[in-house]
Amino acid sequence: MNTPDLEFWFEFGSTYSYLSVARIEDVAQEAGVPVRWEPFLLGPIFAQQGWDDSPFNVYPAKGRYMWRDMERMCEKQGIPFLKPSRFPRSGVTAARVACLARATSQPWLPGFARAVFQANFAEDREIGDAAEVGSILDSLGLPGARIVEQAQAPDNKQRLRERTSRATELGIFGAPSFLVGGELFWGNDRLEDALAWATRGR
Amino acid sequence: MNTPDLEFWFEFGSTYSYLSVARIEDVAQEAGVPVRWEPFLLGPIFAQQGWDDSPFNVYPAKGRYMWRDMERMCEKQGIPFLKPSRFPRSGVTAARVACLARATSQPWLPGFARAVFQANFAEDREIGDAAEVGSILDSLGLPGARIVEQAQAPDNKQRLRERTSRATELGIFGAPSFLVGGELFWGNDRLEDALAWATRGR
Repeated sequence: MNTPDLEFWFEFGSTYSYLSVARIEDVAQEAGVPVRWEPFLLGPIFAQQGWDDSPFNVYPAKGRYMWRDMERMCEKQGIPFLKPSRFPRSGVTAARVACLARATSQPWLPGFARAVFQANFAEDREIGDAAEVGSILDSLGLPGARIVEQAQAPDNKQRLRERTSRATELGIFGAPSFLVGGELFWGNDRLEDALAWATRGR
Repeated sequence: MNTPDLEFWFEFGSTYSYLSVARIEDVAQEAGVPVRWEPFLLGPIFAQQGWDDSPFNVYPAKGRYMWRDMERMCEKQGIPFLKPSRFPRSGVTAARVACLARATSQPWLPGFARAVFQANFAEDREIGDAAEVGSILDSLGLPGARIVEQAQAPDNKQRLRERTSRATELGIFGAPSFLVGGELFWGNDRLEDALAWATRGR
C-alpha cells in the first residue's frame, strides 16, 4: 500500500505548534512518512469562533495551565523554552514567507520554521516584525530582505488567505493539526497517532 | 521518597473522562500510585467562562472533531463506544452519588463510575435520570433507590458544590484533570505524565 503524506498545519504564534515543529521531521522520517508543511493563520479562525485574542488569553485558567504545561513538555522533549514577553505574536509575515517557500518548493522551509519558533518561544524575539523575520532568513544564509519583500507581494498574501480558507474547509480549528488521507488529528499529542494512521496496513 | 497520591478529577458528562475512567486503575496500579477519585461538575466552571453548554456544542468544528477522535481513541483503548443521542447529559445525580461514596469511603466508587460512563458513552442510557443511576447501582448489587435518596440530601448536595468550588480554586478548567503534589495535568493524554510526576525520584 502507498503511504499517504502527512499534512502538517501550523501557526507561528501557536505554542503547541512549537512542540511539533521541533520533532516532526525526526518522528516522520523514522515512520517513513513524507511531511507537507502547511502554514496558515489561526486569527481568522478564532475570529469566526468569536475570539479576538488567543483562547489562552481569553480564558485565564487555561492560559496559566498552558504555560506550565509548555515548560514541562519542552523539558520532556529536551528543547529550550522561554515564556515570551508578548503572546501571541503575529505570525503573518513568517507565514507569508513560509507560503512563498511552499509555493516555490524551497528546501529551507522546515529550517526556517524551526528558527522562527525558536526565536518566539526560546529567545523572546519579536517574530511579528518583518525585520526580525528577515534577520532569521539571513542567519540561514538566505537573502532575508528580498524574500520578505517577495512574501509581501499581493499574490503571495493571497496565497496565505487561501491556505487559511482551506484550513477552515478541512475542519481545522486549532494548531498544530495533522491531516492524513482525510483524517484530521489535532494537537501535538496526536502526532504519533497521525503517523500510525499513515502507515496502517503497510 | 514517598509517592504522592494522584487526584483524579472527573465529570460524568465528559467524553474524555470516559477514556481515563476506563484505564486509570490499571495504569496507576502498574505505576504504584494510589488514586483518589474526585467527582465535580464542569457546568458551573463553563458558566464562569461564559458558556451555557459544552464547548463541543458551542464550537461545532471542535465538536465534530471530538466525536471522531473519541471513536478512534476508544478503538485504540479497546473499549466500547456509541455516540450518545444526547450530549452532554447531566452528571449531577451521578456526581452526588460519587460524592457520597467518596465521603463515606465506599469501595464501590470506581466500579460505579465505570458503569455510569459506560452507560452514557457505550449504551446511550439517560444517566441524567435519577432512576437510571439507581438502576446502575442495583446492577452492582447495591441498594440503588436508597443510595440515590441519600445522595440527594442537602448536606450531600453541599458536598458536591464544595468539590466544584475546590476544583475552581485548584485552577481546574476541564476534565479529566489530574493533580499530583500541586502539579496540574489536564486531559486523558496527560495521565502518563501525571503518573511519572508522582513517581519521579523514586
